[in-house]
Amino acid sequence: MAGIRLARATFLESSRAPAASRLFSSSSVAMEQKYRIERDTFGELQVPADRYWGAQTQRSLQNFDIGGPAERLPEPLIKAFGVLKKAASIVNVSYGLDPKVGEAIQKAADEVISGKLVGEFPLVVFQTGSGTQSNMNANEVISNRAIEILGGERGSKKPVHPNDHVNMSQSSNDTFPTAMHVAAVTEIHHTLLPALAELRDALDAKAKEFEHIIKIGRTHLQAGHSAYLALKCDLTFSEFSGYVQQLTNGIERIKDTLPRLSLLAQGGTAVGTGLNTKKGFDVKVAAEISKLTGIEFKTAPNKFEALAAHDALVEAHGALNTVACSLMKIANDIRYLGSGPRCGLGELQLPENEPGSSIMPGKVNPTQCEAMTMVCAQVMGNQTVVSIAGASGQFELNVFKPVIIKNVLQSIRLLADASRSFTKNCVVGIQANEKRINQLLHESLMLATILNSHLGYDNVAKCAKKAHKEGTTLKEATVALGFLTPEEFDQKVRPELMLHPDEA
Amino acid sequence: MAGIRLARATFLESSRAPAASRLFSSSSVAMEQKYRIERDTFGELQVPADRYWGAQTQRSLQNFDIGGPAERLPEPLIKAFGVLKKAASIVNVSYGLDPKVGEAIQKAADEVISGKLVGEFPLVVFQTGSGTQSNMNANEVISNRAIEILGGERGSKKPVHPNDHVNMSQSSNDTFPTAMHVAAVTEIHHTLLPALAELRDALDAKAKEFEHIIKIGRTHLQAGHSAYLALKCDLTFSEFSGYVQQLTNGIERIKDTLPRLSLLAQGGTAVGTGLNTKKGFDVKVAAEISKLTGIEFKTAPNKFEALAAHDALVEAHGALNTVACSLMKIANDIRYLGSGPRCGLGELQLPENEPGSSIMPGKVNPTQCEAMTMVCAQVMGNQTVVSIAGASGQFELNVFKPVIIKNVLQSIRLLADASRSFTKNCVVGIQANEKRINQLLHESLMLATILNSHLGYDNVAKCAKKAHKEGTTLKEATVALGFLTPEEFDQKVRPELMLHPDEA
Amino acid sequence: MAGIRLARATFLESSRAPAASRLFSSSSVAMEQKYRIERDTFGELQVPADRYWGAQTQRSLQNFDIGGPAERLPEPLIKAFGVLKKAASIVNVSYGLDPKVGEAIQKAADEVISGKLVGEFPLVVFQTGSGTQSNMNANEVISNRAIEILGGERGSKKPVHPNDHVNMSQSSNDTFPTAMHVAAVTEIHHTLLPALAELRDALDAKAKEFEHIIKIGRTHLQAGHSAYLALKCDLTFSEFSGYVQQLTNGIERIKDTLPRLSLLAQGGTAVGTGLNTKKGFDVKVAAEISKLTGIEFKTAPNKFEALAAHDALVEAHGALNTVACSLMKIANDIRYLGSGPRCGLGELQLPENEPGSSIMPGKVNPTQCEAMTMVCAQVMGNQTVVSIAGASGQFELNVFKPVIIKNVLQSIRLLADASRSFTKNCVVGIQANEKRINQLLHESLMLATILNSHLGYDNVAKCAKKAHKEGTTLKEATVALGFLTPEEFDQKVRPELMLHPDEA
Amino acid sequence: MAGIRLARATFLESSRAPAASRLFSSSSVAMEQKYRIERDTFGELQVPADRYWGAQTQRSLQNFDIGGPAERLPEPLIKAFGVLKKAASIVNVSYGLDPKVGEAIQKAADEVISGKLVGEFPLVVFQTGSGTQSNMNANEVISNRAIEILGGERGSKKPVHPNDHVNMSQSSNDTFPTAMHVAAVTEIHHTLLPALAELRDALDAKAKEFEHIIKIGRTHLQAGHSAYLALKCDLTFSEFSGYVQQLTNGIERIKDTLPRLSLLAQGGTAVGTGLNTKKGFDVKVAAEISKLTGIEFKTAPNKFEALAAHDALVEAHGALNTVACSLMKIANDIRYLGSGPRCGLGELQLPENEPGSSIMPGKVNPTQCEAMTMVCAQVMGNQTVVSIAGASGQFELNVFKPVIIKNVLQSIRLLADASRSFTKNCVVGIQANEKRINQLLHESLMLATILNSHLGYDNVAKCAKKAHKEGTTLKEATVALGFLTPEEFDQKVRPELMLHPDEA
Repeated sequence: MAGIRLARATFLESSRAPAASRLFSSSSVAMEQKYRIERDTFGELQVPADRYWGAQTQRSLQNFDIGGPAERLPEPLIKAFGVLKKAASIVNVSYGLDPKVGEAIQKAADEVISGKLVGEFPLVVFQTGSGTQSNMNANEVISNRAIEILGGERGSKKPVHPNDHVNMSQSSNDTFPTAMHVAAVTEIHHTLLPALAELRDALDAKAKEFEHIIKIGRTHLQAGHSAYLALKCDLTFSEFSGYVQQLTNGIERIKDTLPRLSLLAQGGTAVGTGLNTKKGFDVKVAAEISKLTGIEFKTAPNKFEALAAHDALVEAHGALNTVACSLMKIANDIRYLGSGPRCGLGELQLPENEPGSSIMPGKVNPTQCEAMTMVCAQVMGNQTVVSIAGASGQFELNVFKPVIIKNVLQSIRLLADASRSFTKNCVVGIQANEKRINQLLHESLMLATILNSHLGYDNVAKCAKKAHKEGTTLKEATVALGFLTPEEFDQKVRPELMLHPDEA
Repeated sequence: MAGIRLARATFLESSRAPAASRLFSSSSVAMEQKYRIERDTFGELQVPADRYWGAQTQRSLQNFDIGGPAERLPEPLIKAFGVLKKAASIVNVSYGLDPKVGEAIQKAADEVISGKLVGEFPLVVFQTGSGTQSNMNANEVISNRAIEILGGERGSKKPVHPNDHVNMSQSSNDTFPTAMHVAAVTEIHHTLLPALAELRDALDAKAKEFEHIIKIGRTHLQAGHSAYLALKCDLTFSEFSGYVQQLTNGIERIKDTLPRLSLLAQGGTAVGTGLNTKKGFDVKVAAEISKLTGIEFKTAPNKFEALAAHDALVEAHGALNTVACSLMKIANDIRYLGSGPRCGLGELQLPENEPGSSIMPGKVNPTQCEAMTMVCAQVMGNQTVVSIAGASGQFELNVFKPVIIKNVLQSIRLLADASRSFTKNCVVGIQANEKRINQLLHESLMLATILNSHLGYDNVAKCAKKAHKEGTTLKEATVALGFLTPEEFDQKVRPELMLHPDEA
Repeated sequence: MAGIRLARATFLESSRAPAASRLFSSSSVAMEQKYRIERDTFGELQVPADRYWGAQTQRSLQNFDIGGPAERLPEPLIKAFGVLKKAASIVNVSYGLDPKVGEAIQKAADEVISGKLVGEFPLVVFQTGSGTQSNMNANEVISNRAIEILGGERGSKKPVHPNDHVNMSQSSNDTFPTAMHVAAVTEIHHTLLPALAELRDALDAKAKEFEHIIKIGRTHLQAGHSAYLALKCDLTFSEFSGYVQQLTNGIERIKDTLPRLSLLAQGGTAVGTGLNTKKGFDVKVAAEISKLTGIEFKTAPNKFEALAAHDALVEAHGALNTVACSLMKIANDIRYLGSGPRCGLGELQLPENEPGSSIMPGKVNPTQCEAMTMVCAQVMGNQTVVSIAGASGQFELNVFKPVIIKNVLQSIRLLADASRSFTKNCVVGIQANEKRINQLLHESLMLATILNSHLGYDNVAKCAKKAHKEGTTLKEATVALGFLTPEEFDQKVRPELMLHPDEA
Repeated sequence: MAGIRLARATFLESSRAPAASRLFSSSSVAMEQKYRIERDTFGELQVPADRYWGAQTQRSLQNFDIGGPAERLPEPLIKAFGVLKKAASIVNVSYGLDPKVGEAIQKAADEVISGKLVGEFPLVVFQTGSGTQSNMNANEVISNRAIEILGGERGSKKPVHPNDHVNMSQSSNDTFPTAMHVAAVTEIHHTLLPALAELRDALDAKAKEFEHIIKIGRTHLQAGHSAYLALKCDLTFSEFSGYVQQLTNGIERIKDTLPRLSLLAQGGTAVGTGLNTKKGFDVKVAAEISKLTGIEFKTAPNKFEALAAHDALVEAHGALNTVACSLMKIANDIRYLGSGPRCGLGELQLPENEPGSSIMPGKVNPTQCEAMTMVCAQVMGNQTVVSIAGASGQFELNVFKPVIIKNVLQSIRLLADASRSFTKNCVVGIQANEKRINQLLHESLMLATILNSHLGYDNVAKCAKKAHKEGTTLKEATVALGFLTPEEFDQKVRPELMLHPDEA
């Protein structure tokens, strides 16, 4: 085949400085690679012969050698392009596209959706800000695969043309934001929400398991403080019920952003006017995407807004950021409550997942908490990226699209994966160290408050001061001062008496 | 009166380094000030004789000399304390508090709500992280004012005791977060939402005013690009409809956070157990606050969460941050569209608000856009503060409360004020420079696309290339190449033909 | 005087919505106010008769009703304007300005520097992004005060004209950034660096005071872990030496940004070309400012950069942000080490500054740590503001100047004030609870490692496991297993043997 | 070999939810994989037979299924581990390690440095916060490869033990931060600084190329404004000299952080005491690393600080963030100056890198600017991550190490790559559109100011107002009003007269 030539070339990293000068650079791998020649208005261009992508993808690869493979656009976005192209093709057939062509496009799109062709999407985040070449990447890959399915020659653009058929009635400017929303909503739906629900349920099970345990409460990190400020302050292991509430709210928070996040730009074409499409195309595509994903999407009421702004993604990330703040608090609490074994708080025992030491059996590092809090820090920083990028639209187009969706999808995945890991490798295995909890509860002087109604403030103060000064227990001090017998003390000073508001 | 002594003292800034060493420090003003003596467990303490505040406020003033008057807690929070203390007093009367005492507390609280006593709240943000002394500040001021109303002596704690009566059934740990939510919700309701609606309506009026104007669209800042990418791309002044949509969504975004933001911690007391309150106190206080503010508040379903986390405020600020991103985009567009007068885009004429120059009448600086974008930058940074602080709760208490509410209230007020200022001083006065818009529209080569169906791609390309190369209009080039007569050109090339999707 | 008329008017807040609709708005205070009439090209304008400011200031006040008094430009910036105007006047006299006029300007400028006229600078941050009206505010106040000094009539512009004399050879575009740098450098020099040095010295004194104390080390919050990971792990109170190093580095970090921060834009005039100034004006003004402040300033080598970018302030804030991260860590450590009294770590006793409870003498809340960490969160968020604003320059001018300097100066002041407060009210009073430290050290099982060379890994493991399982001490377990006598144990297991690297 | 068994297993993504429920999840690939069995204190563990890594790496892989391959620790960090392990081995030999073992370790480490073994480092960022398992990953890979070199059996730990030999005198807690600093400094040195210098030089060449061009200046986006505010305001293409200054400063900024960034934690072992190492080990390792990298490193003066805080990386990222702000400004300016072709400013022509349209030759999208500004947004957000993580150290250890270094290295690489791409694909090809520049310069009314000294303010104002009102040029208006003849106008109104400060 004339278009194929043999050449030595480096792939992807070809424009990096000579390896010698870059001790730590990603390694360039020179290899024997066959190419086919594609042409565009800028002239000839070598495309690896075994690739489905075409000239526009290749040119972007060469012009944006930024960050390497780690910065490729995330897989859910690529799959969302598959969904979109399939949906558009179905609708286009209804408007007159040759069904044979349409069917081949849909089959090829299915392969994109399945993840099978993910290697054919090599473009990085830091490219054209509208993601134009990534739309073309999808068009090129799907058309070449469809051509193949129909028995044609890759690169021939016949009988399936990337622009005329795969991109029919579409523009990069409306497909890319549509794929952004489809990817984000679907990932939230299928990945994040179940993971958060799993974590919430695991915490809820623990809350119930620990329900009977009365423990000291800590405000300002100080046990005594809370006690005396409130006059009564111990509590059951209600921290866990608080965590459950945080996650219940978090799930609601995220869901509340979906009505706007599931509005699609498709049909706005290049600048929001919808020129070059058919009337009704927008509504039909949204319906088709809903069918394909099983999630309800609607066409955006104002396509100008949908292309020029990405407020819906900024908003949704605001909810992700809030969940990150919740999880940061929860993971921090748990690692402090589990600190020890003897020189920390030690109220919780966290499961051991890695050998800490061959000598000391009790040693546990709260490594799942550490991974989780690092995830939270990353998500909180991603918020800054998404906000800056989201605020930077200009006129009819926001050209920070790839960096926005990259950060949103990273936050979704990290929160989901970390929640699952945290649930499985930490939460379900947490045990309460009741002995320690009880010891701390009774060592604390906060119980004194319960005696106020029996002995009066001043006398109780005397007991507490004596105990604090002499390092004894409250009971010892109270008995030593002659206010109560040991038996009386035990009868009156029962923490469980202090757990509820007074009956009015 | 024995408690009053004459002393030379400096107020507030008293612990600052000697003025000589601080060229730029806030000036310390030494003055003759009368004091009364108050006592607490740490000993004697001078309180300015003419102040309503007491020992705990005074001690906080002295211990937290951080940032000066500019960092005082914001007024809406102080007024929210007034609302809360009044509501609590009404409920407390229903549980048995002496109605005479209750009534005096309510009168004093009304004065706090009115803003009359705002000078009595001198404490800064950077104090105890639970805001304990600010709760005491409210208790002290209200009790002293109530004492006065009842004819008693300031500082005597009789017949109205700051703790026993004003703070009855409450703890700092539940009052401060309650005041935070009341302040935020009320400010959003009364200040921000109306201001955003006003701006949206003004933009909507402009969108309608400009409806008939066909103008160039710009994507990637490039006129031609959008045109040819989409084959047809000009648009009416639809940017403005996009802005309207952004604000409509923004208002919804904020509203969607209110269900969680209007849940109140009151009744959780010190650690969320609700000890030391009466059963039902929480529900009744929320109902009373709803009555007083005219906004629906509910008691939080889980008080542990309500004390230990401030996710609801992080979430709400996420919506504010999203609105800031929207407004940044809108203000940036408007200043670029108004840039010029002759050397920029010049499609809009912005109202003149300040003398630009005594010589040049047309000179306008987009100063309202500048103020607005600075506000947006501030709000976007406040998001980082609120997120970090919100993620930093520990065990039963988040002790970043004052800095959270300070930033939330600042964002609310700045967005509201800037929106009103932008509406009044900019948006309502914007005029379209139709002559310029028309000139740019026809100078652009994008109109060529409309000829595709008449002349075919290749011939149209020839016309466009010739025009671009020779710097002529498309019409001149098309006529020169003999494809059309001038009359034919004018008949076929009408931008208004390109504004809608094809009928299917 | 004809220019004065009696009117009822509200000041500053006059454009706010009616109070009735704004429950929580700042209160508008209507008062009897005398005005003089000033005129500019937009017509007549009322200026409060007793004010030094003029028409341009007044118009800005009215056009930018954003945020209220809390958002006024910070005092150090205003004083820096005083310094700059004085320096410019001295240089202008050397270029021919009437010395009588110059002298009056310098006297008036001195009053600005002294802080006496700070009330004459009412403009808020959220105004024209170049700070133009604040430069005019300085020009108007200084000229009117100079006029007064020379016996003239306020508002007459004779014999001292705000533009022709006070602003001579200057433009807002170069004065405002000059004042920004002068204010920031001076505040860092006079306020922040001494406060940080004070804190470092206090921590250093504590490090020396605690030098003899051997304590447990905690990594991953786990005592045991560090022990066994490193085989030996206890340490003296070296945390404090780490804090000292952090602050020593922090001071260096800030100083390393000063070479760029002390470059001044003055002399660039409106767009960096230096038109409208005299040759050498820039160098002379920088020299004069150095003389007045006692700090070395230089003229910026490239005035375009100095007007259009504020990288030097972004960089400097990066150093402030780093110091905030250091202080966050230090304050967090101290509050955790001081947590308790009995139910936390309790290794440190923090000074009591406020009554915690009338009953329990030992209760201390780490309130200074709380204030400090809130300050750090604020500074970390200010970084986001400064970065966004700093990145947003356009062509020849960055128009986010006021919001940048506001945030930089706030960060400087908060860090300085909080450091001083933290030093005075916390660090100097910290005491080590040696009994508790020793107890934790010996209760921990980490000491086992020291026996490895005597008994071998396996036997030591047996001891540690037994102790952990049975809740006894290592000594008890070791003796019970018959490996050592109590005396042998005490002789071999001495923590102080484990504090240094082996001699090679 | 008994340790090898045949099993069907999924790799890396094995714990993900069933594919059916995860439309968009990364695809799990089931494959035939041979395993060897390794054992640790938790029992048996399958490790892929063809991998060099061992049990601890494998366990981390399974316990931290967070984010997938995209979240692996970056290559420069892995190579830095190679450098460190080699250096430590050389020093260990000098302290008595068997030279044969040492040499094998060094050879294996060389292969890590070369990048050849990068696939053997599969661990993700979100793992143990001290990076413990990544240190073990290095130990395991190097020991197994060294064993192989010496003819031993992989997994046998003989004759090269991962802990006893490769990790000799080291702890995860000092190796990981050492590798962080080595990686960051080396990447800055070899990758970022040259890329920034290249960009600066390219901009400098343009500044010189454009030196002769006089153009309009824009402040507040308004041409006229700057003119009249400063009375004279046009300028040569000095924007570019401003950019050069920004980059020159940026390079200095980054360099100024290196003195602290090149201090190494190595020798502090687990908690900073240096126990378990030899005296002098720290100094020697730093010297050896300097030799290997050709960059000067020193041992940290305080190891507690070096383990417990990462201020040096926060500081360094502050400099990266500042450079991002500079580049954001530069890229934004260039895309606006290049906007058009006819409907924007059009003063610059940016090189065409991708086919914009097959019809319109002049269409250029500023795609390199778009990629650059997205990079800047990412770096600005990474600052938030690094700050939060850097502030979160606890006691003797900061356990946010992996997320810190990931973000720092990402920022370094993105800035470097984007700078090189921007230089090569944009800056060097920028051309000035002199015709357009000249047209805008003369169309603007700002030239009027030059006539002030000839005709007086009032008359010039008349000319400018007439020109503005009637849409004519200043020349036409001036001539029409009879103030000057056309020849006089041309002689007097020459922009080049206005480019420098007056001679004093």
